[in-house]
Amino acid sequence: MLQTIIQTIESPSAAIRTAAQARIDSLAKPLGSLGRLESIAAQVAAISGTITPEARRKCTIVMAADHGIVDEGIACAPQEVTAIQTINMLKNLTGICALSSSSGARVYVVDIGIKAQISHPDLIERKIRPGTANFAQEAAMERHEAEQAVLTGIQMVQERVNKGYNLIGTGEMGIGNTSCSSAIFMALTGASADEAVGKGGGITDEALALKKQVIAAALARHQPDSRDPLDVLAKVGGLDVAGMVGCFLGAAHSKVPVVIDGFISAAAALVACRFNPLVREYLIPSHRSAEPGFTHIMQELKLEPLLHLDMRLGEGTGCPLAFGIVDAALSMLNTMATFDEAMINRDYLVDIRP
Amino acid sequence: MLQTIIQTIESPSAAIRTAAQARIDSLAKPLGSLGRLESIAAQVAAISGTITPEARRKCTIVMAADHGIVDEGIACAPQEVTAIQTINMLKNLTGICALSSSSGARVYVVDIGIKAQISHPDLIERKIRPGTANFAQEAAMERHEAEQAVLTGIQMVQERVNKGYNLIGTGEMGIGNTSCSSAIFMALTGASADEAVGKGGGITDEALALKKQVIAAALARHQPDSRDPLDVLAKVGGLDVAGMVGCFLGAAHSKVPVVIDGFISAAAALVACRFNPLVREYLIPSHRSAEPGFTHIMQELKLEPLLHLDMRLGEGTGCPLAFGIVDAALSMLNTMATFDEAMINRDYLVDIRP
Repeated sequence: MLQTIIQTIESPSAAIRTAAQARIDSLAKPLGSLGRLESIAAQVAAISGTITPEARRKCTIVMAADHGIVDEGIACAPQEVTAIQTINMLKNLTGICALSSSSGARVYVVDIGIKAQISHPDLIERKIRPGTANFAQEAAMERHEAEQAVLTGIQMVQERVNKGYNLIGTGEMGIGNTSCSSAIFMALTGASADEAVGKGGGITDEALALKKQVIAAALARHQPDSRDPLDVLAKVGGLDVAGMVGCFLGAAHSKVPVVIDGFISAAAALVACRFNPLVREYLIPSHRSAEPGFTHIMQELKLEPLLHLDMRLGEGTGCPLAFGIVDAALSMLNTMATFDEAMINRDYLVDIRP
Repeated sequence: MLQTIIQTIESPSAAIRTAAQARIDSLAKPLGSLGRLESIAAQVAAISGTITPEARRKCTIVMAADHGIVDEGIACAPQEVTAIQTINMLKNLTGICALSSSSGARVYVVDIGIKAQISHPDLIERKIRPGTANFAQEAAMERHEAEQAVLTGIQMVQERVNKGYNLIGTGEMGIGNTSCSSAIFMALTGASADEAVGKGGGITDEALALKKQVIAAALARHQPDSRDPLDVLAKVGGLDVAGMVGCFLGAAHSKVPVVIDGFISAAAALVACRFNPLVREYLIPSHRSAEPGFTHIMQELKLEPLLHLDMRLGEGTGCPLAFGIVDAALSMLNTMATFDEAMINRDYLVDIRP
């Protein structure tokens, strides 16, 4: 079933992208002068199949899960913070909630593998297992569990799209998830621990050295197959990251644009692109994470972040900020006057686009 | 009168900035993990004199004026486009209108020196003179006219603040205004034409070479006094730019944060900071303009743009995008739970802020 979904992802319409760019070039402004707002507008048009895409209904899907790797003493906070902050997120108290409210976006929270049993009327309960195993010792999870987590992410997006959402953000809550994200990135690309491992929310220099060592040793032990993303997810991944991989695949399959947050989200986007490179056409980057591996993943994906805010919180906090930029891009496409409507003869235009 | 206003600008409250940062550090997240959202929130708190600053009422003030320098053949569009696009702006049809509507901001349009006579019920008519003189031949304007334009900008902000606006954007419409902005920047800093002059909305390589030559020759001819910002504005400035200088001074004087758009706006901010360096404390950058001189001015002001969008439209289009980021920053300050409220013991925190 996962293979079927992956294989039926289609490219956005090149013809509509071209037509949208032609409309953008007919708007009363110097050619290309709205820069990346123009490319985002054309991308969303191509994905949506119309040169007048409607205003977006926006939500961020937050995958919450625990990570056995925290037993190695390399995380920035105690494991119970995953459950506590998930509950706080449902109470509208965390960073992603604050930033989403200011951009008119909803937050959906999925328990895809929190170790503790928690409950809340708004929690989407899809626990695959109560946290991963410690991948320094054994595989993080079974292959079928990784597949199930990816399928869960796909389904989460499909349900949101069925409700009318057409711009999806990807977030997570899981103490220890920069460790598995670094491991995934290293497994897929051969990047070194120095390139891929950072201090996450905040650890000491000593803990950073240990984190690099633990991750490198785990990769040497498990030898995940870089050509088999599910093998990588099962051996050194996380349930939250696997769920996010599903969100990216689901968005591409459902033909809606999907926003990358920070390092963990970017690692998940990279996995999704390894499942099917067409996923890249559906991706919208948001901010430049302060986590060092982030920039390497962006280079791998040939994407440039829109926002330079030195953020490193996660939760999906970059997404609502990017939503505002997408809104602006579509407002440009849908409401600016053309040269004809502006009653300006455009013969003087000089095209200086690179 | 201008001197009185300039001399009575006060620094934002350092005590409140410190208290706001302390509150931000008490919020349930890794220390510093919301990066520049944190510094923006603390800045707006310090400016507003409270650690719980209210949600912003936002507007962009657009200064529209013509430039005699267009006679040299170095502009990207015919001069009549200034008047046409000003009318289109009042009809809600241009780029700044599209982007402002998606961020809930108003646009105010001021005729501070359009050559043609135009009228519209919403146009704020404050024409100092019908365009500047060609500064390649003679001073752009009289010193008293430059002063009047600056005072007009101050008054425009004071009126908006009196109406309840507390976040101001700065925009312009004026064919030829990258030329005077480059000249101002060179006069104030000694930057070379290669550093300061770009293709604006879009001109040929030949026109760019001519533009550099014309501006350098004008500066050699007029010898504006770099220590006397009004002399610089009068000799090689523009009425729109002078009005924007007033917007920056007025915002600082009225204690409201003010957003820089692109190159022209940044040049005006630099002039305002030469009038009084305390103005810098009220500035919020928005996007990294594609105009080459922009980055040099940001370095001079020790500011880093928030958004990397390759935009070069002007009109103030970066401001509504930055408004969304300020909204998010204040939402963080006002609605996120503290560690105590989140019921998390914060003893584990490791501070990795630079």
